[in-house]
Amino acid sequence: MPPALDRLVKNLMRFPGVGEKSATRMAFQILRWPASVAKELAESISSLHGQIGLCSRCFTFSEKDPCSICSDVKRDNSIICVVEEPADVLAIEKTNTYRGIYHVLQGVLAPRDGIGPDDLKINQLLDRLRKEKIDEVVIATSSTVAGEATASYLMDILKGFNIKISRIACGIPMGTDLKYADQMTLKKALEQRMWVNK
Amino acid sequence: MPPALDRLVKNLMRFPGVGEKSATRMAFQILRWPASVAKELAESISSLHGQIGLCSRCFTFSEKDPCSICSDVKRDNSIICVVEEPADVLAIEKTNTYRGIYHVLQGVLAPRDGIGPDDLKINQLLDRLRKEKIDEVVIATSSTVAGEATASYLMDILKGFNIKISRIACGIPMGTDLKYADQMTLKKALEQRMWVNK
Repeated sequence: MPPALDRLVKNLMRFPGVGEKSATRMAFQILRWPASVAKELAESISSLHGQIGLCSRCFTFSEKDPCSICSDVKRDNSIICVVEEPADVLAIEKTNTYRGIYHVLQGVLAPRDGIGPDDLKINQLLDRLRKEKIDEVVIATSSTVAGEATASYLMDILKGFNIKISRIACGIPMGTDLKYADQMTLKKALEQRMWVNK
Repeated sequence: MPPALDRLVKNLMRFPGVGEKSATRMAFQILRWPASVAKELAESISSLHGQIGLCSRCFTFSEKDPCSICSDVKRDNSIICVVEEPADVLAIEKTNTYRGIYHVLQGVLAPRDGIGPDDLKINQLLDRLRKEKIDEVVIATSSTVAGEATASYLMDILKGFNIKISRIACGIPMGTDLKYADQMTLKKALEQRMWVNK
């Protein structure tokens, strides 16, 4: 393989889930594009870090500080949704159902990897709960083992505040046949069943 | 989504098979890397077109002209393997079983897309067969409809030359359970069966 191609393939393999075959396919694809299209991709990658930083209030990725959500006067500033990563903010925004603000932890508790509460933006969350007028905290970490552990930890330390705490629902995903749902999910779905006619 | 991120996502979506979700995941991944790693990826993309060109003899991608295979004195210059794309050269080289040279068509016949013989490097192949001392042409286009059609076309026009012509074998892929092979492949595998004790 020509060294220039080899260098690109090695760089593309840094993406999770991209092995040598996919990386090679991508590299050949770039060669098939006009040089201008390749330059535009390169430029959008190289300028990214300079243009994007963390919002100093909610710690999501943003070009401005505070971010567009924190500075939006139409958002409900009394409810904070706590998520793991900026990508989670994007996912929730796409549902068009949440009008509150966010707090991005920038990770999950992972004691085995040496990531404790002080490595996440948890103290910053507590600061906000002390200073801002917050009514409710929605804990929206993932329903993975690490996400659940982080949620438990948060529920515990948030008890001291006079604030409503909620956790996003766990259950059968929309469009999923019940018999194909995993046992743990089905268990949760039963435990957290909603009253229809009570 | 911040405009800088949006721009990158749109650029990443140019890769075939990369939708908005994958592109977004890749963009967030780039943000998680140190800026230097992102710059290195960007630089390897933007410099690619300037460093890579086509070998004027076999038309594969190369930094030098002629390419490293064409200029390798240890290769057997009497046998040409005809492939669709430079990536196919790479795939065959990886098998470590072929010691001849190549000719890259730079595409396949696709009349519906207006791609005829003159849009491929077919005349250049005929030129080589006239000028170089070639004993055998291995037609190694894909076993897709377009690849087979291109192979048929080549077999037809190569009849005029006093050269051995071969086509790579079509059959059950290694490690595949016979009953899961598609009918057409199984048919070919039976037709092209090899004598074991003859």
